[in-house]
Amino acid sequence: MTTTDTDAASWAASARIYNSAVAAWAIGAAWEVGALDELQERGALDTAEFAARHDLDPASTLGMFRALASVGVVRRDGTRVVPAEDFAEIQRTRSLFHWLVRGSGELFRQMPSVLRNENRVGTFYQRDPVAIARSCKEISVFCYDPWFWRAMEGLDFDVRVAADLGCGSGERLMQILRRHPGARGLGVDIAGDSLKVAAADAADAGLAGRLSFVEADMLTMDPRPEFTEVDLLTCFMAGHDFWPREQCVATLARLRELFPNARRFLLGDATRSVGVPDAEMPVFMLGFEVAHDLMGTFMPTMADWEGVFAESGWRLRHKHDIGMVANEVIFELEPR
Amino acid sequence: MTTTDTDAASWAASARIYNSAVAAWAIGAAWEVGALDELQERGALDTAEFAARHDLDPASTLGMFRALASVGVVRRDGTRVVPAEDFAEIQRTRSLFHWLVRGSGELFRQMPSVLRNENRVGTFYQRDPVAIARSCKEISVFCYDPWFWRAMEGLDFDVRVAADLGCGSGERLMQILRRHPGARGLGVDIAGDSLKVAAADAADAGLAGRLSFVEADMLTMDPRPEFTEVDLLTCFMAGHDFWPREQCVATLARLRELFPNARRFLLGDATRSVGVPDAEMPVFMLGFEVAHDLMGTFMPTMADWEGVFAESGWRLRHKHDIGMVANEVIFELEPR
Repeated sequence: MTTTDTDAASWAASARIYNSAVAAWAIGAAWEVGALDELQERGALDTAEFAARHDLDPASTLGMFRALASVGVVRRDGTRVVPAEDFAEIQRTRSLFHWLVRGSGELFRQMPSVLRNENRVGTFYQRDPVAIARSCKEISVFCYDPWFWRAMEGLDFDVRVAADLGCGSGERLMQILRRHPGARGLGVDIAGDSLKVAAADAADAGLAGRLSFVEADMLTMDPRPEFTEVDLLTCFMAGHDFWPREQCVATLARLRELFPNARRFLLGDATRSVGVPDAEMPVFMLGFEVAHDLMGTFMPTMADWEGVFAESGWRLRHKHDIGMVANEVIFELEPR
Repeated sequence: MTTTDTDAASWAASARIYNSAVAAWAIGAAWEVGALDELQERGALDTAEFAARHDLDPASTLGMFRALASVGVVRRDGTRVVPAEDFAEIQRTRSLFHWLVRGSGELFRQMPSVLRNENRVGTFYQRDPVAIARSCKEISVFCYDPWFWRAMEGLDFDVRVAADLGCGSGERLMQILRRHPGARGLGVDIAGDSLKVAAADAADAGLAGRLSFVEADMLTMDPRPEFTEVDLLTCFMAGHDFWPREQCVATLARLRELFPNARRFLLGDATRSVGVPDAEMPVFMLGFEVAHDLMGTFMPTMADWEGVFAESGWRLRHKHDIGMVANEVIFELEPR
């Protein structure tokens, strides 16, 4: 008996799915160790030389590139690797893969136990918050920033104090302050560790005097004097935490009170898809929605969002319908 | 701004890889919760009804089936799911996916840190031994059993005592004893927990009197009187642990001494591929080889194996060249 080519051929679909799974891990890893950027900048690399220079295991490094080559991201000849036909697309979407495999990989691995109702209590899943933060920083740039700046340019007032809810690394606020030299910024986040890093970054950037941070849960936080100075409120990739509906209406109404002088609220988030056929889902949508199902997090649709603003004291001034990978949208709200 | 269809279309490759990764996790989970078998047996299921009957979270269960549908394993209309074009192929290879995503998923998730030489000391990766054992039991059946029984039928002596090295669940030995009612069996494994389960299974099967187990490391174990009674030696999916070469020669030679009356040694394992183009790797090969690279485990090629037998006191009587998913082979050895 030897290998039958017929068997091998009939297993094409299985191999394609399987090798793609290995490749997805490799994409996240290749970004993290700098291989994707180096390939883009230099147009080629030698896996052995790359491994030596970065103090990586050469066999494992070659394995990572074999995985990328198996699905057409790179082409390999021995240890020499060059970008292949799908490289640019993968380079652009790498943070979405990293979010999936490195940030949420353990959640997906645990799918069989997470599915069981008896296990869905307490801490029933694990994710990697550092990897999620790293991924989301880049996702934010390519999924939201062009539309965000268009919205900012359309403001009919000069921003004096901007507050970012769920500010994470503080990157968005620092960019706002650079473009608006007269403005100050206020970052709100529940993660104290992130805020320490953000404060250090702000100091490094010479923005310490103009940027301050508050460690608080945006769903339950108390009023603060500095909140009353805020004229621009922003919140990106965190708004689904406002839901379910009743809590969302209450939270949005409370934000109106906590920030009584906010003239505009730019609220950007991914929303749950409606009516997209299973076989036509773009990159990210499936992973994003299934992950939130596994975690038991309510994920509003675009229509769900549009149905709560008026009731909670806001007027939808404009909807920036991005829909790049997971029905992202920026709602431009103003007080009613 | 609204979604541009051009963008969505140009992201096809990225979506295909991404959705395949989510689907790979879903395949492993769907097997584990019984969804694949139920689909095969009934030809259709309702995800809500399935979730209710198995006490699973309905949204997460639907998400699992959406992932399967995204790559053509099933077709979904609302909550109704039927097998699609690639179902049979995935059902056949599901254990290979389970090995990858559930058994080795954490190893792959850690790829970026596992790649770094500075981290490759001590316990530098995690895998799920229970999931690996579950996967390997089924992999063994469909990748080795037909060839194994052909080899057994070709034996020119009546088996009296069979010893299985790395016996795990004891399944292979129990099958041998059922087909050879006069024979006894001896299972050797380093995992005491597996042996307890195996012993209980053997008792349940009424084979307790004919089957015994030894907890020992096959690479370093001492001689035992019962070893001298063994006329058939088997070892499946564990032989790569004999390597690297020098250790392999020594181990094979030592097995000749430990089992002085073994007339045949059936040694089945996957081997490292040679010259398979990256884009043409069948299911399992890539994951299997990269996993062993990440773990730092030497994986011999077919030629590596063929180059050690004579030197270590064995004659290669026949080579059952399976090559189904990862260059599996059964070497039929006899003492020189």
